[in-house]
Amino acid sequence: MDPDGERRARVALSFLAQPGDPVMGRALRTRSAAELLALVTGADANGEAMLVSQPEDDALSRALPRWRDRLGEVPSVARLAAWEQNGMRLVLPGDAEWPTQLDDLGEARPLVLWVRGTADLRFACLNSVSMVGARAASGYGNHVAVEMAATLAERGVTVVSGGAFGIDASSHRGALAGGGSTVAVLAGGLEFGYPRGHAELFRAIADHGVLVSECPPGRGPTRPGFLVRNRIIAALSPGTVVVEAALRSGALNSARHARELCRPVMAVPGPVTSEQSAGCHELIRDYGAMCVTCANDVLDHVGVPGGTGGGLRLGPAVPRDALDPVTLAVLEELPLRGGRGPASVAVRAGVDLDTALRCLGLLAASGFAERCEAGWRGKNIA
Amino acid sequence: MDPDGERRARVALSFLAQPGDPVMGRALRTRSAAELLALVTGADANGEAMLVSQPEDDALSRALPRWRDRLGEVPSVARLAAWEQNGMRLVLPGDAEWPTQLDDLGEARPLVLWVRGTADLRFACLNSVSMVGARAASGYGNHVAVEMAATLAERGVTVVSGGAFGIDASSHRGALAGGGSTVAVLAGGLEFGYPRGHAELFRAIADHGVLVSECPPGRGPTRPGFLVRNRIIAALSPGTVVVEAALRSGALNSARHARELCRPVMAVPGPVTSEQSAGCHELIRDYGAMCVTCANDVLDHVGVPGGTGGGLRLGPAVPRDALDPVTLAVLEELPLRGGRGPASVAVRAGVDLDTALRCLGLLAASGFAERCEAGWRGKNIA
Repeated sequence: MDPDGERRARVALSFLAQPGDPVMGRALRTRSAAELLALVTGADANGEAMLVSQPEDDALSRALPRWRDRLGEVPSVARLAAWEQNGMRLVLPGDAEWPTQLDDLGEARPLVLWVRGTADLRFACLNSVSMVGARAASGYGNHVAVEMAATLAERGVTVVSGGAFGIDASSHRGALAGGGSTVAVLAGGLEFGYPRGHAELFRAIADHGVLVSECPPGRGPTRPGFLVRNRIIAALSPGTVVVEAALRSGALNSARHARELCRPVMAVPGPVTSEQSAGCHELIRDYGAMCVTCANDVLDHVGVPGGTGGGLRLGPAVPRDALDPVTLAVLEELPLRGGRGPASVAVRAGVDLDTALRCLGLLAASGFAERCEAGWRGKNIA
Repeated sequence: MDPDGERRARVALSFLAQPGDPVMGRALRTRSAAELLALVTGADANGEAMLVSQPEDDALSRALPRWRDRLGEVPSVARLAAWEQNGMRLVLPGDAEWPTQLDDLGEARPLVLWVRGTADLRFACLNSVSMVGARAASGYGNHVAVEMAATLAERGVTVVSGGAFGIDASSHRGALAGGGSTVAVLAGGLEFGYPRGHAELFRAIADHGVLVSECPPGRGPTRPGFLVRNRIIAALSPGTVVVEAALRSGALNSARHARELCRPVMAVPGPVTSEQSAGCHELIRDYGAMCVTCANDVLDHVGVPGGTGGGLRLGPAVPRDALDPVTLAVLEELPLRGGRGPASVAVRAGVDLDTALRCLGLLAASGFAERCEAGWRGKNIA
């Protein structure tokens, strides 16, 4: 199997199906991406003949013409390169940055992820918590989200959320205020930048974390796209907190995904007189969600480092052996006292600035390095 | 055994020991009240000699002189009669009005109860919920207590609480506003009327429910008395709701008693930013208390009639056969349509007005009768 060809085929397929398309996910369990793409492109000629008649293949037979009609949406190599020039990178299963916890989604695993930002997605999510909630959040809900996310960030825990107004935005703002990394999973493409009002916030997230989408960069979000996206928010982290949600809020859908993935579901209580907390109370009362009132409660449940011991310094989340050679080279150039700027680190490690920044994000997320006033420094690991 | 002598002895003993005295409770497991009283009065002469040397009896030996020193507090028959003239009645184990669920307290069962009010204590508590919480309640907590108690009352469920400011008072006020019966268990004697600011409230409770205390009428409340009293609040009803409580609030002590009695413990969540709800959140998070947001949630957990079906009319809580002949005679005089005043009912049933009122309270609490504009009417039971 040609790895480059397989990669190109998988990227092409990601432009043909809707995110989370179960037919494509199932088809890829028994075929390589290249074989499936060949089936799509050749479907008018001999595609039907190539299929064995089985229920799964009935659905596939119906899907092939639909996907073939969209072959024109597959971008040219130049277009893909332009997106990458524009700061977006494609992350595929098997890549070093691929968050392997997404493999728990089985057939619903995203085909590819588009990522923009300084952090390494996989390492950022090793110590993370997903925070979700209502767009129409109350002042109370927004306050709790900011405080909880800031404390999580101060403990070195990454916040994972969506890109919406309300609890999503407050969670990211809290994480940024806490000096931490934050991951925004968007329902639309990264270039589309929905909602528009969050352009500044998304820039800040890209500077200190990552923006993620399984949609092609220019595609706008769809209503079902938001619900499908929620499975990624639930799967990226070891646990999901619903900060504030009315009954029938979309945030409860994220909680359902987390439950299906056997990840802890937590909910923040609020006044019983507030409709905006009714969904949280329902989760606690009827679905066994854990009642959490602060970041410490959350950390107790997800079992990520930092949950106990309060102000304890965190050790690294992965062994040093797991770092790739380039990242190791960057780590070697970080002083343990004082600090060093990224440009200087890049020159000394013999890598370009972008690579240095990405490695630094990875090192920070995995507990080997930290930002300081003078730039970056390594953590003294006992 | 002489029943009257046994009754007089038990009443006398209730003036000698502090409420909930475990030594006296244990001593009464193997001796009649008359025997124990004889032991107290004769303790200086041959009391020690009458005791077999056992650990239990060591404690008893030490208690006897303490109790003997208080023999002067046992009131005369005339004094007891004066209290009864003043609207207070003594209820002892074995009496028709004795709430047998208190027997679950074992050795900590009250010796006697002083009761004042129109309702029958035992029947009022058959369909009941205990509501407890902080004195220093927030506007939120008081609001929730009033609403919850009023809805419970509208469903025919009696509210049981203490007599303090805050959640206790709001729960009683809500129950009264809902047209229901309410039971206030006081830590001090009924004649002492602590706190003074609740004189009006206590009058209203006596008119539509009952005031209860295990203390002699004139005795003031003590600090430990409040905690000891809490076991009665927890034991009287099938379940306890903590409406609002800070960490280390006395209301959590009531919850502990309910848990020890294997009765459901429920807690109302509130803002995580409010210290006054922190105890409730702790109960839900760490002690398995059920999260309840409204009266319906409460009724779902305690399994008293009225929990499901919302506006359904309630059937009686006990079989008609369980009613005593006098109460049955009063019930016979209640019309099913329209209504009849208590004085008229008393005359027709051949009882005095006080008896009629008490029977009517019993019939209402047990689901056979209800108040209406024209007085009282029987419920049409299918």
